[in-house]
Amino acid sequence: MRQLKPIAIIMGSESDLKIMQRAAEILKQFHYPYHIEIVSAHRTPLKMVEFAQKAHERFCCIIAGAGGAAHLPGMVASITVLPVIGVPINVTSMQGVDSLYSIVQMPKGVPVACVAVDGAENAALLALRWIGVTEKEIAERLKEYQEKLSQKVDEQNRRWAMGSFEGG
Amino acid sequence: MRQLKPIAIIMGSESDLKIMQRAAEILKQFHYPYHIEIVSAHRTPLKMVEFAQKAHERFCCIIAGAGGAAHLPGMVASITVLPVIGVPINVTSMQGVDSLYSIVQMPKGVPVACVAVDGAENAALLALRWIGVTEKEIAERLKEYQEKLSQKVDEQNRRWAMGSFEGG
Amino acid sequence: MRQLKPIAIIMGSESDLKIMQRAAEILKQFHYPYHIEIVSAHRTPLKMVEFAQKAHERFCCIIAGAGGAAHLPGMVASITVLPVIGVPINVTSMQGVDSLYSIVQMPKGVPVACVAVDGAENAALLALRWIGVTEKEIAERLKEYQEKLSQKVDEQNRRWAMGSFEGG
Amino acid sequence: MRQLKPIAIIMGSESDLKIMQRAAEILKQFHYPYHIEIVSAHRTPLKMVEFAQKAHERFCCIIAGAGGAAHLPGMVASITVLPVIGVPINVTSMQGVDSLYSIVQMPKGVPVACVAVDGAENAALLALRWIGVTEKEIAERLKEYQEKLSQKVDEQNRRWAMGSFEGG
Amino acid sequence: MRQLKPIAIIMGSESDLKIMQRAAEILKQFHYPYHIEIVSAHRTPLKMVEFAQKAHERFCCIIAGAGGAAHLPGMVASITVLPVIGVPINVTSMQGVDSLYSIVQMPKGVPVACVAVDGAENAALLALRWIGVTEKEIAERLKEYQEKLSQKVDEQNRRWAMGSFEGG
Amino acid sequence: MRQLKPIAIIMGSESDLKIMQRAAEILKQFHYPYHIEIVSAHRTPLKMVEFAQKAHERFCCIIAGAGGAAHLPGMVASITVLPVIGVPINVTSMQGVDSLYSIVQMPKGVPVACVAVDGAENAALLALRWIGVTEKEIAERLKEYQEKLSQKVDEQNRRWAMGSFEGG
Amino acid sequence: MRQLKPIAIIMGSESDLKIMQRAAEILKQFHYPYHIEIVSAHRTPLKMVEFAQKAHERFCCIIAGAGGAAHLPGMVASITVLPVIGVPINVTSMQGVDSLYSIVQMPKGVPVACVAVDGAENAALLALRWIGVTEKEIAERLKEYQEKLSQKVDEQNRRWAMGSFEGG
Amino acid sequence: MRQLKPIAIIMGSESDLKIMQRAAEILKQFHYPYHIEIVSAHRTPLKMVEFAQKAHERFCCIIAGAGGAAHLPGMVASITVLPVIGVPINVTSMQGVDSLYSIVQMPKGVPVACVAVDGAENAALLALRWIGVTEKEIAERLKEYQEKLSQKVDEQNRRWAMGSFEGG
Repeated sequence: MRQLKPIAIIMGSESDLKIMQRAAEILKQFHYPYHIEIVSAHRTPLKMVEFAQKAHERFCCIIAGAGGAAHLPGMVASITVLPVIGVPINVTSMQGVDSLYSIVQMPKGVPVACVAVDGAENAALLALRWIGVTEKEIAERLKEYQEKLSQKVDEQNRRWAMGSFEGG
Repeated sequence: MRQLKPIAIIMGSESDLKIMQRAAEILKQFHYPYHIEIVSAHRTPLKMVEFAQKAHERFCCIIAGAGGAAHLPGMVASITVLPVIGVPINVTSMQGVDSLYSIVQMPKGVPVACVAVDGAENAALLALRWIGVTEKEIAERLKEYQEKLSQKVDEQNRRWAMGSFEGG
Repeated sequence: MRQLKPIAIIMGSESDLKIMQRAAEILKQFHYPYHIEIVSAHRTPLKMVEFAQKAHERFCCIIAGAGGAAHLPGMVASITVLPVIGVPINVTSMQGVDSLYSIVQMPKGVPVACVAVDGAENAALLALRWIGVTEKEIAERLKEYQEKLSQKVDEQNRRWAMGSFEGG
Repeated sequence: MRQLKPIAIIMGSESDLKIMQRAAEILKQFHYPYHIEIVSAHRTPLKMVEFAQKAHERFCCIIAGAGGAAHLPGMVASITVLPVIGVPINVTSMQGVDSLYSIVQMPKGVPVACVAVDGAENAALLALRWIGVTEKEIAERLKEYQEKLSQKVDEQNRRWAMGSFEGG
Repeated sequence: MRQLKPIAIIMGSESDLKIMQRAAEILKQFHYPYHIEIVSAHRTPLKMVEFAQKAHERFCCIIAGAGGAAHLPGMVASITVLPVIGVPINVTSMQGVDSLYSIVQMPKGVPVACVAVDGAENAALLALRWIGVTEKEIAERLKEYQEKLSQKVDEQNRRWAMGSFEGG
Repeated sequence: MRQLKPIAIIMGSESDLKIMQRAAEILKQFHYPYHIEIVSAHRTPLKMVEFAQKAHERFCCIIAGAGGAAHLPGMVASITVLPVIGVPINVTSMQGVDSLYSIVQMPKGVPVACVAVDGAENAALLALRWIGVTEKEIAERLKEYQEKLSQKVDEQNRRWAMGSFEGG
Repeated sequence: MRQLKPIAIIMGSESDLKIMQRAAEILKQFHYPYHIEIVSAHRTPLKMVEFAQKAHERFCCIIAGAGGAAHLPGMVASITVLPVIGVPINVTSMQGVDSLYSIVQMPKGVPVACVAVDGAENAALLALRWIGVTEKEIAERLKEYQEKLSQKVDEQNRRWAMGSFEGG
Repeated sequence: MRQLKPIAIIMGSESDLKIMQRAAEILKQFHYPYHIEIVSAHRTPLKMVEFAQKAHERFCCIIAGAGGAAHLPGMVASITVLPVIGVPINVTSMQGVDSLYSIVQMPKGVPVACVAVDGAENAALLALRWIGVTEKEIAERLKEYQEKLSQKVDEQNRRWAMGSFEGG
């Protein structure tokens, strides 16, 4: 039924795993297949090139997380024409500003879709939104997800029962 | 043959037009249909809500540019489940850092794909990469585009003929 | 006697509650009625619109706290003509700079009164200052509050008895 | 009919005048009386104290613009209990970030309502929103103003007639 | 023998005391008299004005520490012609950058001598350097202090005995 | 009559001269002697050391301006025990933030009095305030200077005659 | 006589050429051979990989300039074991801070020698310093260069003849 | 066999030792001799000058770590013509941004090779890369080191065995 390939979740370092697994959890929740792997732009550059060259045969999109001088998302995007979503990871004393700038400020011609610092969940949801454009079931589940976000706010309001203060 | 709907290019203000038209130019170059319109989160909030609610019937994705406290991409993304690409525009004395943070730092649950400050071309190319996942012709054109980027570097090297300096 | 409506205290997320309750405590201290509720720009956008549209019937002003890409204060201000006070909340690795810029850098035409990062107390005091313009009793209490701030400094000086060092 | 006193527009330096006059223009447009004057925290500190001490007899609120180490809004707010709106002015090489931080980061107890860097128009509109809480006519005019903002967007869309591109 | 008046150490808040006491400790070490007191620009503005007006009768210089929107050093400097040394205190989520900018970016005409964030020791040493210009004994002690700094480095090198690694 | 030595105004580069001459102009205005010279920490390090070692025989204080990685003020301060005032100069794309941090963030033990970016006038006024502590005439002139600052504000108010707007 | 290979000067884009040619001019001045070429990490990724793989046969070191999300220096350094010097270029609204962070914040294991924003001259001088470690002639020339820097300061002092102001 | 002198590892303060010892550990791993010592630009300026003047007789390059207003690398580079590698240390509330700017933004003519904040390992690896240009054995070991980095990524992938999720 599903016509699209799995999503690749890659990251530059083992230490990014804690954050990036949140992307995997979202995809699991949506029953969408994925492959997760450490692919480092700086420590395994040739493997990264090979990964990016073959990516269109295996995946429909790539979610790439990296910290510091975060080159992985942009480099993968320069080799493949698959959509690449970059997740800046907060791993240095600069609190993710370095990785954000390294990922988002890509030059004209090579796009990367950047999400918030440590925003791996949104990277997965972004990929699902794109998949939902052609796959109705995913779009339906995203609507349900969105409704649940809204319902959760209602529940929180009920739970806290903060109500009103009448003054006086 | 094409099965996907047009792309919406919206922006918060007339002053964003100069940048955002670059997205339109890329789409024209790829013969991909689009609709372009000023939709302001702050000046036309209800129109924006209506636009976002009906977007999935008209468009396959939304490219939204905004400057300063840039709320348009995130607000549209909170209403639709279409993919939304945000373009931070450099319009204040803060040189786009304010719009970048307002667009990229979205909370968990509502993704926006952020590109570079004033990076409207890449917003269009990013949308086309997603479209290329299911539409082979677009993917082919993107490969050609990527090759042209590479060829242009060769031409520049030939034109400048900087060559080598032998020392001595 | 009091002619003004209650103050609304809203926030984008349950995690903002700890900070925003400080605004409620100030209002309680001034015996001024308030309503407190989670209203998320991103998770409950339509509820937010409805809230903002009806706000002038229920409230005299809105205090809105939000973190990260903090759109709540600005969006509410774009729908109502009530005064809106924005409280940037420090919830991301960017330590509130992202929420500050998202709240304070509003475009010409749609004002938000921004206070310090995590400055919920001052948001309440700011609202009370406005109310004090027409309600003398509130103005009197604010003067007492201001005097107490001053007295507290005197007490601290007495308590520490740091006095002087004669040298030698 | 009008029961509220005029608005004071003060600024720290002659060089702030160009920006701060925009606040005066908004008030003129709303037929609301104001007094405009240079009152410098650093060059006329005692005059500033006197101004702030007597302000509640003359004004209903104070709009204060200042650049660099911008102390005027906070200092005035520490002396009066009138509401004070601060306008950070971009006058140094730091592009307004220094004045923004100097104005917005006020300590607990002494509130200032901060608007965007160079955002004098919004300072005036913010004051008018507060006045509109008790003065219906002002509230009505603000609604018209808001509608005009919206209409202006429509006009801009018509003028540019950007329409749609059909692809192909 | 000593002809100069004591140094005043003031600070905006009790929470600044921990840092500012380091200035007192340096002065004690140099046997130089000081007076230490909480004087808040925002909570005791009139007391601050009075303090600044009378300062030249009591003190030879003023060391003023403050955090956030740190107005104390600049305001005191605008009233007295005594030299004022400002110490930015790290008390908000902005890690002292807000207080640094609020203190250092003073406009032309009203100087403040700014030291590092939380740099209270150096504020005291700076005052002593000025005093040493006319008081030889202080200058001598400063030279000894400087030599001790140098000796301490030697001791640390001996203690760690890191020596050299011969390779191989 | 005058018992203090001249002030040294030094700067790291010819390009700093335009800014640093403003310090000289202030000193001229106060009839205070000075010596002005280019002394570069990076291009003439040994000359700088010699300059700093002999400074106490020739000068009462040192005003040092530098841009980028601005080491001159701090290095001079590490060799002499004279008071050193640092002026961060805006010469790189970082708009003076680099020089500010390089000058103000001195470690414990070696104080530099930092003024605003490009704030050479205030460096001179700061030196004069210190000199005024022992030299009454200078203190008197500083009071006059301060009064003129205040009068200038009055003149500006008269010149602009902005007065009040009565509404209507 | 010279035993070392030429230096490679590469850059990500034609627009970096104006800055990077300054590196070439320094090398010419030192009679050291170089090769200059546009090699883009994002537009010619495979060419870049090939370039980096073969670099050790052709060059003794690589100077790489890039702007925005500047990946070229780090990527080249991840493939070769030659020393790589990175030059952040100021090409976006972020004034080189983005390229600086993208170049300097490399992860443990893959070093890049970063110089100042637009600091291409120093990149060349840094390479020459390394070459001078084994090639005495280069070291001699660097000493002469350093002396000339110092002499130039003397000349500037003579030219400006700023001398001293005697007060009076 | 080895023809090059040892590497000097210096640092401004005892508190930098924890970070800088990581450089020593890398050199030990490569069997390359080094000398490690605290040499403070601000506390031992004359010793620093002497150290820098004699460095070319003892060392082949200098790795210098410093925090805050980090002048050590740049000052040493201004005296010697040996290559100097600067390591910004994160010791103040500014999280290393102050030391980074103080080290990297060196003026034209005096180069410092800057690495990441707290990046002492890479400082050592950078020095080894330069040494490897003439010493083949070091170059070989660097290739092995690079391969190990790559193998470690493979091991991590095996250890986590994250594999793929099939969806469904």
